[in-house]
Amino acid sequence: MDLSNDFQSWASAIQQRTEQALDQALPATNIAPNKLHEAMRYATMGGGKRVRALIAHAAGEFCGADASKIDQSAIAVEMIHAYSLVHDDMPCMDDDDLRRGKPSCHKQFDDATALLVGDALQSLAFQVLATPNLHPDASHQIKMMHLLAVASGSRGMAGGQAIDLASVGESLSQTELEYMHIHKTGALIRAAALLGAYSANSWDEARIAAIDHFAQAIGLAFQVIDDILDAEADTATLGKTAGKDANSNKPTYVTILGMAHAKALAQELYESAVEPLKAFDHESTRLIQLAQFITQRGF
Amino acid sequence: MDLSNDFQSWASAIQQRTEQALDQALPATNIAPNKLHEAMRYATMGGGKRVRALIAHAAGEFCGADASKIDQSAIAVEMIHAYSLVHDDMPCMDDDDLRRGKPSCHKQFDDATALLVGDALQSLAFQVLATPNLHPDASHQIKMMHLLAVASGSRGMAGGQAIDLASVGESLSQTELEYMHIHKTGALIRAAALLGAYSANSWDEARIAAIDHFAQAIGLAFQVIDDILDAEADTATLGKTAGKDANSNKPTYVTILGMAHAKALAQELYESAVEPLKAFDHESTRLIQLAQFITQRGF
Repeated sequence: MDLSNDFQSWASAIQQRTEQALDQALPATNIAPNKLHEAMRYATMGGGKRVRALIAHAAGEFCGADASKIDQSAIAVEMIHAYSLVHDDMPCMDDDDLRRGKPSCHKQFDDATALLVGDALQSLAFQVLATPNLHPDASHQIKMMHLLAVASGSRGMAGGQAIDLASVGESLSQTELEYMHIHKTGALIRAAALLGAYSANSWDEARIAAIDHFAQAIGLAFQVIDDILDAEADTATLGKTAGKDANSNKPTYVTILGMAHAKALAQELYESAVEPLKAFDHESTRLIQLAQFITQRGF
Repeated sequence: MDLSNDFQSWASAIQQRTEQALDQALPATNIAPNKLHEAMRYATMGGGKRVRALIAHAAGEFCGADASKIDQSAIAVEMIHAYSLVHDDMPCMDDDDLRRGKPSCHKQFDDATALLVGDALQSLAFQVLATPNLHPDASHQIKMMHLLAVASGSRGMAGGQAIDLASVGESLSQTELEYMHIHKTGALIRAAALLGAYSANSWDEARIAAIDHFAQAIGLAFQVIDDILDAEADTATLGKTAGKDANSNKPTYVTILGMAHAKALAQELYESAVEPLKAFDHESTRLIQLAQFITQRGF
C-alpha cells in the first residue's frame, strides 16, 4: 500500500477516537441487563477498519465540522453497521459463524441475544444522534436523523438485504447487482459521508454535492472490492468466511464480470469518486487518500 | 364492559385514523423490495386494539395537542410495538405461530423476512418522528426522538426482552417481575403517553407529570391484565396462543400472586393511575375512561 504516513496516522487517530466514543456511548456491562450489554459491546467494539467512521470524519473535515461533533455521527453509523452484521450472520440469514476473526455474536452468545443486540444497537444509534445540541440548528439535526432512518430502512440497508436474499440462486445483470448494493451497503456509506458533512455548523451546498457524489461512487467501489477480496483471500486474512458468497450461489461482481473487469470497474469508480473533489485542490487531499485506501485495500 | 358510547366512538375514530396514518407511512407493496413491504404491512396493519395509539391520543388531547400531530407519535410507537411482536414471535425467541388471530409474520413469510421486517419497522418509526416540522420547536422534536430511542433500546423494551429471556425457568419475586415489565412493555407505553403529551406546541409540566405517573401505573396494570387474560382466556378469544407463558415456565403475576391478588393489583394500579388526574376535573375524563378500558378488557 502506497499511502503517506500522514494518512495512516490520521486514520489511526480516527479509529482510536471512534473506539473511545463507542466505549462511552455503549452501556457498561455492569448495568442491567448485563449479558445484553456485554453482547452489544462484543458486537461493536474493536472491530474492523471503521471505514464508515473514516468516511464520516474525512467528509466532515472537508466541510469544516468539529471532530467531536463528527464522532457522534460516526458511531451512530458504526452501530447501524454492527447491528446489520449481527443480524446478517444469524442462522436464518447468512448463517455465518465467523466475524472479524472471532465467533459471530449468535455463536458467542445465542440467537435470541443476537437478535436483541441488533435491535438495541439500532435504537442506540438514533439515541446518539438525538444528543441535545449535536447541531446548533436543531432542524438540521432532525434532517440528519431522517437521513439515517431512510438509509437504514426498507428503502436503504434493510431493503438491500431483502433484495440480496431474493437474489440467491438467481442470475442477475450488472445493473441488478448494482441496484442491490446501492441499497445494501451504499446507502449507509452515503449516510456516513453526508452525516459527516452535515456535522458542520453551516451547510455548504457545493461541498455537500461533491461529498454525495464521492460517497455514492466509493460505496459501489467498496462493494466491488469486497467481492474481489472474497474471491481471492483466504479465511484467515479476511477475518470472515472467505468464498462464502460464491459458494452460497450469490451473484458477485467477480462472478458476473470476471476478475479483470471487476478490478477495472473498481478503478473507474475510484476515478469517478475523486473527480469532483479536484476543484477543491489540497482541501480534498484527505478524501482522495481515503478513496485510495478503500480501493487499494488488499491488492 | 360499562363504558360510555362517547368513549367507544372516540376509540373507534382513533383506531381508524391510526390505520390511515399507518397506511400512508408504510411503503406501498408495489415499491421494491415488494415482499418486504408486503410483510411490513402484514405485521403492522389491521391489528390489535391500538392501545398505544389510544394512550398517545388521550394524553395528547389532555395536553392540548392537535390530533394530526399526535398521529405521527402514535404510529411511530405502534411500529416499534409491531416490530417487537414480529421479533418476539420468531423461533429463536418465543417461537409463536399465531398473532392477532393470523399466522405470525415468520410463518406467513419466512424467518429472514421477519427479521428484516422488524429491523425496517424500527427505522421507519424514527423516520416518522423525523418528519420536518412535526413540532414547531425542533429541539422539542429531538427530545421526542431521544425518548423513543431510550424506550426502545437496551434500557427499555429490548432490555426487558433480554430480562424476560433470562427469567425462563427462574423463580422471580414480584419486584423482579415488575422490573422486567417496566422495561418490556412499560417503557413503550410510557413513551406513547409522553410523546402524545409532547406533541402539544407548548409543554405544560404539571400535565406532563400527571401523564407520566398515569402511564407508568397503567403500563404495569396492562401487563398484570395480560397475565390474567393469558391464564383465563382460550386461544380463539385471545388471538394468540393462550396459556403460553405459564406453559413455557415463564413467571407471571398470576403464577406469583394467584388470580385473586393479581386482579386486586390491577385495581390498585388503576386507582393509582387516575389519582393525579382528578385535579384536572372533566378535562381528564378521556384518560380515566381509557384507564377503565385497559383495566376492564376481557373481564
